Amino acid sequence: MSIADLLPAEAPLVVPVALEGRRYDIHIGRDGLGRAGALIAGIAPGARAAIVTDETVAGLHAARLEAGLAQYGIAATRITIPPGEASKSYARFAEVCDALLAAKIERSDLVIAFGGGVVGDLAGFAASVLRRGVRFVQLPTSLLAQVDSSVGGKTGINSSHGKNLIGAFHQPSLVIADTALLDTLSEREFKAGYAEVVKYGLIDDPAFFDWCEANWHRVIAGGPERDHAVAVSCRAKAAIVARDEREEGDRALLNLGHTFAHALERLTGYDSARLVHGEAVAIGLALAFRFSQRLGLCPGQDALRVARHLDHVGLPSRLQQVPGGTGSAQEIVAAMAQDKKVKRGALTFILARGIGQSFIAPGVAADDVLAFVTDELKG
Amino acid sequence: MSIADLLPAEAPLVVPVALEGRRYDIHIGRDGLGRAGALIAGIAPGARAAIVTDETVAGLHAARLEAGLAQYGIAATRITIPPGEASKSYARFAEVCDALLAAKIERSDLVIAFGGGVVGDLAGFAASVLRRGVRFVQLPTSLLAQVDSSVGGKTGINSSHGKNLIGAFHQPSLVIADTALLDTLSEREFKAGYAEVVKYGLIDDPAFFDWCEANWHRVIAGGPERDHAVAVSCRAKAAIVARDEREEGDRALLNLGHTFAHALERLTGYDSARLVHGEAVAIGLALAFRFSQRLGLCPGQDALRVARHLDHVGLPSRLQQVPGGTGSAQEIVAAMAQDKKVKRGALTFILARGIGQSFIAPGVAADDVLAFVTDELKG
Repeated sequence: MSIADLLPAEAPLVVPVALEGRRYDIHIGRDGLGRAGALIAGIAPGARAAIVTDETVAGLHAARLEAGLAQYGIAATRITIPPGEASKSYARFAEVCDALLAAKIERSDLVIAFGGGVVGDLAGFAASVLRRGVRFVQLPTSLLAQVDSSVGGKTGINSSHGKNLIGAFHQPSLVIADTALLDTLSEREFKAGYAEVVKYGLIDDPAFFDWCEANWHRVIAGGPERDHAVAVSCRAKAAIVARDEREEGDRALLNLGHTFAHALERLTGYDSARLVHGEAVAIGLALAFRFSQRLGLCPGQDALRVARHLDHVGLPSRLQQVPGGTGSAQEIVAAMAQDKKVKRGALTFILARGIGQSFIAPGVAADDVLAFVTDELKG
Repeated sequence: MSIADLLPAEAPLVVPVALEGRRYDIHIGRDGLGRAGALIAGIAPGARAAIVTDETVAGLHAARLEAGLAQYGIAATRITIPPGEASKSYARFAEVCDALLAAKIERSDLVIAFGGGVVGDLAGFAASVLRRGVRFVQLPTSLLAQVDSSVGGKTGINSSHGKNLIGAFHQPSLVIADTALLDTLSEREFKAGYAEVVKYGLIDDPAFFDWCEANWHRVIAGGPERDHAVAVSCRAKAAIVARDEREEGDRALLNLGHTFAHALERLTGYDSARLVHGEAVAIGLALAFRFSQRLGLCPGQDALRVARHLDHVGLPSRLQQVPGGTGSAQEIVAAMAQDKKVKRGALTFILARGIGQSFIAPGVAADDVLAFVTDELKG
């Protein structure tokens, strides 16, 4: 199956996100940056804007964005933060808020988050509390941000007690996913984002997983398949968020693979030289399926297909692939139990009855997890 | 007219606040602290709680609150901040958030704001962003907080760019206004809060202003009149907030007297030794009515009645009463123009056609304000 069979050649990819009383669009394509001025002027004519970005993205793309905004009469102030997770701090949050106030951003103005997940989470949170809430636009520049963090309105910063513990649900007014910007990502960073793409197939779209198996190399290469993968991912996430904006139910499905992933990130000290989020998710997805198989829920061939696809792409699928090791099975389970998705001893997992058949399983016994992880480590 | 004519002797004073999709109650009376355990257990059985309070309130009342909670099986951690406006800072916000996380407050748990406006604003804001939002209870201990800041969901902290510029709309799940706690306030602090009580009569309730003129000394003395004044104030604010939660229209009426007041607070360096918020509001109310009179909108006798009532109570009503002076008329108008309620040169004022007949007047000419203030300063 080719993308040409699915879409007319010139179809603009626009994914609407429909929430109670609000609606916004995600525009996907290789010309997003060029169209940003027109799209942003469309939602906020005459507004002032502040672009929050990081040093890396600013160096590569900010001048082009500013020129595009200027063409449509939008004056923009640039606020630049250092790249990396350490910027999701209280101190950087205060600094960005004060910079937005210094830029005289009022309630009718806009914050533009121009970068990866760190920029989107931090700038979105600052926008949510500036004058008790101003609008913001997501212009995600990593694959992970385009298919996951820029959609759905979760914003926030980290505390020493854990990641994303301080934040807000604040939906963007517009998302522009320029897929050409992904050409500047490292192969490792691109593939890490791809783990979240695969996840949507595994949650509830087996046909999309089939498509991923056949087309993954074209997604990496760029072109219409990449845009299609981003659009399907955004549509999948938007559908779940529309059902459950505040994660009181179904939204937890998006955590497929993430209980394992968060534990692995914790055990590797959030050291991106060892493991980045998407790589941890890849291992987590494979583990979730093998654990489901062990519990007699999922056919072994499905668990095998998941791991094989990740292997083909060049993503890790086993605990042994974590550089420097993960620690013991006990340590892994203890790290999982620190996760906020844990309630009174029992772990909540997203398990699967097969590819595209995931479900929320509250009350998974810690002993079952420990036995499974012990065997996984034996390899 | 006596309060006994208005209410059955044992009537519990409960003011419901009805917002889109949510509702909460304000309980008013001299036994609030004693009933807090039962009321809080009623909305969150089995929850953990964190009490955010200041050193002054903690010393006077915290042990009694904790005992009341313990009676209903609610384990509470106490988080104490220094009293005073300086606690509404980024640094204190981070400290309170981290203390709430250390107390293991989860999404199903509660934050209890136990203090005046500073505690309510700071604790409410921390609750709004902790794990992207946990519930909170307001237990206001000042008259100002009971009739104004604890109702309506505005929370926030200050920036060097201005007051309350960083925050959230986060409605409490319950408000308990224990009017006996007001017995420990200084006379000056009590009267400052009373300025906000009078304001509700001036906005749209001329009969309540009549009642205030006849009963203000009984409000200060305590007893059923005090409870009645708090209840009428909360009901008035709740009605306006229900119409316009996010201050896109009518809620601006609550700013009657506040454009002048904010300017005076700014010009006195927010020095509470010179001027506290309620005193600034008292002057602002009198000025708003005299300015309305000067513009030919309001009968002179109404402006006179407002000033006379404030004088009787012992609140200031003229610029000359600001200790240390206010600066020139030009400085006062410039300080007003810094206010966030100013749009493109024209000032938005709340003016009045008479007592209880206030309205939003956008586009008041700065020249008219300057001429008025100049004459006021001449005395």
